[in-house]
Amino acid sequence: MARPDTILALDIGGTKMLAALVRGDTVVEAHTMATPRNGDPEAWLTALFSAIAGWKGRYDTAGIAVSGIIDEGCWSPLNRRTLDIPDRFPLVATVARLAGIDRVFAANDAQAAAWGEYAFGAGQGHDLVFLTVSTGIGGGIVVGGRLLGGLAGHFGQFRSLGEEGRTLEDRVSGNWIAAEAAPYLPGATARDVFEAAAGGEGWAATIVNASARETALLCGNIQLALDPARIVIGGGIGLAPGYLESVRQALAGLPPRLTPQLHPAALAEKAGVVGIADLARRQN
Amino acid sequence: MARPDTILALDIGGTKMLAALVRGDTVVEAHTMATPRNGDPEAWLTALFSAIAGWKGRYDTAGIAVSGIIDEGCWSPLNRRTLDIPDRFPLVATVARLAGIDRVFAANDAQAAAWGEYAFGAGQGHDLVFLTVSTGIGGGIVVGGRLLGGLAGHFGQFRSLGEEGRTLEDRVSGNWIAAEAAPYLPGATARDVFEAAAGGEGWAATIVNASARETALLCGNIQLALDPARIVIGGGIGLAPGYLESVRQALAGLPPRLTPQLHPAALAEKAGVVGIADLARRQN
Repeated sequence: MARPDTILALDIGGTKMLAALVRGDTVVEAHTMATPRNGDPEAWLTALFSAIAGWKGRYDTAGIAVSGIIDEGCWSPLNRRTLDIPDRFPLVATVARLAGIDRVFAANDAQAAAWGEYAFGAGQGHDLVFLTVSTGIGGGIVVGGRLLGGLAGHFGQFRSLGEEGRTLEDRVSGNWIAAEAAPYLPGATARDVFEAAAGGEGWAATIVNASARETALLCGNIQLALDPARIVIGGGIGLAPGYLESVRQALAGLPPRLTPQLHPAALAEKAGVVGIADLARRQN
Repeated sequence: MARPDTILALDIGGTKMLAALVRGDTVVEAHTMATPRNGDPEAWLTALFSAIAGWKGRYDTAGIAVSGIIDEGCWSPLNRRTLDIPDRFPLVATVARLAGIDRVFAANDAQAAAWGEYAFGAGQGHDLVFLTVSTGIGGGIVVGGRLLGGLAGHFGQFRSLGEEGRTLEDRVSGNWIAAEAAPYLPGATARDVFEAAAGGEGWAATIVNASARETALLCGNIQLALDPARIVIGGGIGLAPGYLESVRQALAGLPPRLTPQLHPAALAEKAGVVGIADLARRQN
């Protein structure tokens, strides 16, 4: 029989899918597979549920974290270049059918991670904004103990005048860091750039600092907009050695009342599944 | 005897003070006076309460809307150039003493106006972001039926890279519009610029549109950050003829899901007092 504290948590992206059985903040069992190149989310989910058929009966509630936007249980892409799915795919209904259960909840993956950090991680019950700085930039907002849904937290998509067609993540993300490094170290990844910066390469430190300054401005603006108790920073770039310190240094000139309280994310990659599992448990 | 539905609402700024008796969304009686040039908020409030001494006994609850920041009933300036008061002035305690009542609530003025629009105006109970575009830019956020306090809504203070020392309101506000107009029409006010634009003057239309484009970008970014059901635009610039239409035109290229739903503010100048009165009634 299903233990009511065991939740099936799915994290579905355009390149990778993760299924996990989650209890509280513990991942009991997990299965990862590449997202099939062909087909649509219906086919992806069918493949995933066939891989975890042996888990049937061990859960009666499921949470699904996805890149893109969730509105009323339906899944839409924010950007077809990074996630090529149709508009308003009936995600909750499809998972309910494939899993044979009624208790299903879905949210954006960065929103789910924000909730994970709020409930179990660096948020510790404080209203927070979560920022994941990675190949792109995502985010989530918890206000008054409530996770904001829909588009909320898509800070990486911010635009400025005079930057037509470019978004904030185009000046911050791992993709940007790697692209900036190309003239100095052809083929460099963002990780290579951080290693070069740590090794004393001036060009690499300049790139990392430019990204950190932009992230610092974003954090300062988030403080002015929402005044969260904490801003939690995660992601491969956000948690790379020295990055958070660079962001803090860039904020050093602000008056104390305007200075964000920055905390490193505590749950790493499991924030999304742990968060969506907890949301599914609470919302159903 | 005090009617429990009658609230004393104060709106205190660096140049003007307003006291009103408010029932629901109706201002029953109002008194305006210039903020004394000398002294501190203690002196200002003493002067105001002496002017409305005749209202004593007609209220047992008071709400106070102020420019600046309210934290735990204390009032601090965000910017000493526009509001020269000490840090953490005990606003709620001072008004409670001067009014001889216990039920006192304070909030930032744009936050109070946001609540007014939510409860009685263009928000109609929808989660909203309120933006007042005036000599400066202020704002407020209602999420899950809850008004965000502290710094929240200070969108006008947003900063961008490459704009050191300048804020978003420095590229949008009535002050900016008037300054931009100086080469064309020395001494022009923002109102003069709108009139010139309506009269077909190309330079004036260019200035108004530049402001509207920046406001449109802000609204687009607010939608990505918070995904409010509505963005309500108020203020002398925000409600000037043609401005909201220019903002909408600048947003015309966005996909529907990312497009903010813009509504003109419905309560005009009374939004602040009506909002703070309702907050005081609910919070006490």
